[in-house]
Amino acid sequence: MKLYTYWRSTAAYRVRIALNLKGIEAEMVPVDLVKDGGQQHSPDYLALNPAHLVPTLVLDDGTALTQSLAIIDYLEALWPAPALLPADPVARAQVLAAAHLVAMDIHPVNNLRVVQHLGETYDATPEDKAAWMRHWMARGFDALQAMVRPDTPFAFGEAPGLADICLVAQMYNAHRWGLDLAPYARLCEIETRCAALPAFAEAAPEKQPDAAQA
Amino acid sequence: MKLYTYWRSTAAYRVRIALNLKGIEAEMVPVDLVKDGGQQHSPDYLALNPAHLVPTLVLDDGTALTQSLAIIDYLEALWPAPALLPADPVARAQVLAAAHLVAMDIHPVNNLRVVQHLGETYDATPEDKAAWMRHWMARGFDALQAMVRPDTPFAFGEAPGLADICLVAQMYNAHRWGLDLAPYARLCEIETRCAALPAFAEAAPEKQPDAAQA
Repeated sequence: MKLYTYWRSTAAYRVRIALNLKGIEAEMVPVDLVKDGGQQHSPDYLALNPAHLVPTLVLDDGTALTQSLAIIDYLEALWPAPALLPADPVARAQVLAAAHLVAMDIHPVNNLRVVQHLGETYDATPEDKAAWMRHWMARGFDALQAMVRPDTPFAFGEAPGLADICLVAQMYNAHRWGLDLAPYARLCEIETRCAALPAFAEAAPEKQPDAAQA
Repeated sequence: MKLYTYWRSTAAYRVRIALNLKGIEAEMVPVDLVKDGGQQHSPDYLALNPAHLVPTLVLDDGTALTQSLAIIDYLEALWPAPALLPADPVARAQVLAAAHLVAMDIHPVNNLRVVQHLGETYDATPEDKAAWMRHWMARGFDALQAMVRPDTPFAFGEAPGLADICLVAQMYNAHRWGLDLAPYARLCEIETRCAALPAFAEAAPEKQPDAAQA
């Protein structure tokens, strides 16, 4: 399998963590979202992913899967251990809701192309763009902190799962764009515990081969 | 069960369709996102949904489930027929990817609170806001039309599933905000086929009790 990835894409970062947690080997193929106007717009890449976004997972038979959480759903089906979602339907829906809060309500509004469009349409400065991103991260983290369990090692239990994956990847952007994390002690505690695990640490943006070339 | 819903919320609309397709009874509780500054910000509602968003499904034991696709995942587990996702992991990931493209890459960027923030931060006019929404819908629909199957009655097969649900709900916004649908003949064809089914027709915004009061 090949994962088309970009070091700073938090959506790709989620899939890298999931692969590592499950011990799945995949070749990393960097897609530079910035260089040359963005390699995600190249015809070759669009044949794999018509949405102009990373990540894409290409299976050995050539099938291309897109959307980070759909890719992780596929990995969960083929490599069920360790499980990233609980078996109980209510518990599963609660973990999914926390993951979706990050993946739907925070991340897309702050995506590179959205802040680029903000610059093109409203002359948003770099500081305006960072303020935009912090606004949505703060709103989302307020809710997320109320959704995770208050007293477990990870967001919802004894082992990291899909909510932890989405949280840790989003935390990279929170640090990058200077979100005040003081109100989010519980989320920071989960992040610290995850970061100590090799599956998370090795998936981190700065550990990716394409980080060195940037 | 109670579904906290707003007639024009396309996320709530998705859940209404899923409930109807599966023949599940649920009491509809309207949450007016506009009146009084937005009832989704009331303390009572935030106790159910700390994200200030609809929908929320409250189970008979009082458990509150949030995020439309997490709620539908729960419904799929408890009421598996008719299935909204294929059993095959690759086919399932492809349907999920199309659903997520709508639910992650189009909808959140166009959410009411995002365009409100655009107005507050950049003095965006109503026409600016509509242009913003059309921009992201066009980008998303370009990709979505390349992702759905070209030759099946519904997006991915003989029966409607999660991708059709997300498409139909998003189409409501496409009509509302004047997206030029000429390039999306295949998506329009799927929408028309879905709209002919009572499960979709009865979930439509204008059929909701709270539409009449707006």
